[in-house]
Amino acid sequence: MYKAKINVTLKKSVFDPQGKTVLDALHSLGFQEASKLRVGKFFDLNLKAKSEKEAEKEVRAMCDKLLVNPVIEEYEFQIEEDGKS
Amino acid sequence: MYKAKINVTLKKSVFDPQGKTVLDALHSLGFQEASKLRVGKFFDLNLKAKSEKEAEKEVRAMCDKLLVNPVIEEYEFQIEEDGKS
Repeated sequence: MYKAKINVTLKKSVFDPQGKTVLDALHSLGFQEASKLRVGKFFDLNLKAKSEKEAEKEVRAMCDKLLVNPVIEEYEFQIEEDGKS
Repeated sequence: MYKAKINVTLKKSVFDPQGKTVLDALHSLGFQEASKLRVGKFFDLNLKAKSEKEAEKEVRAMCDKLLVNPVIEEYEFQIEEDGKS
């Protein structure tokens, strides 16, 4: 058993309105020292696979087919083996 | 200058409908080996602060005042110093 953590963000070149809104809200609450805020999402999941390489391939396929919109988003992920196997 | 990365998830005891929907979608796409999927969000931001301790305090205040709903969500964060200071 493997655990995968997938981080998805908007590409740097894509405007992030949610991040802008949160940053404005922080400023209006007095947190003037904050800047360059970007919001992203992540997926934590368990995965049955024979090897880490296979798990990696699966995760990449999941991202490409469902989890990530390649036009505006990019992703990175970590995979680790779960002790309980 | 510091960089903070804040991860926000629903508490384990709270049902995650978005995660359930994504997991069902993965299953229907043939990814039967996936399980226990949970979705979260993260905030990446830059922060001016005199010390790492102060940056930590600021981030905690931001989470408590705006970024996190303590009734249903929990958070963790990492802070690292940005070389360009």
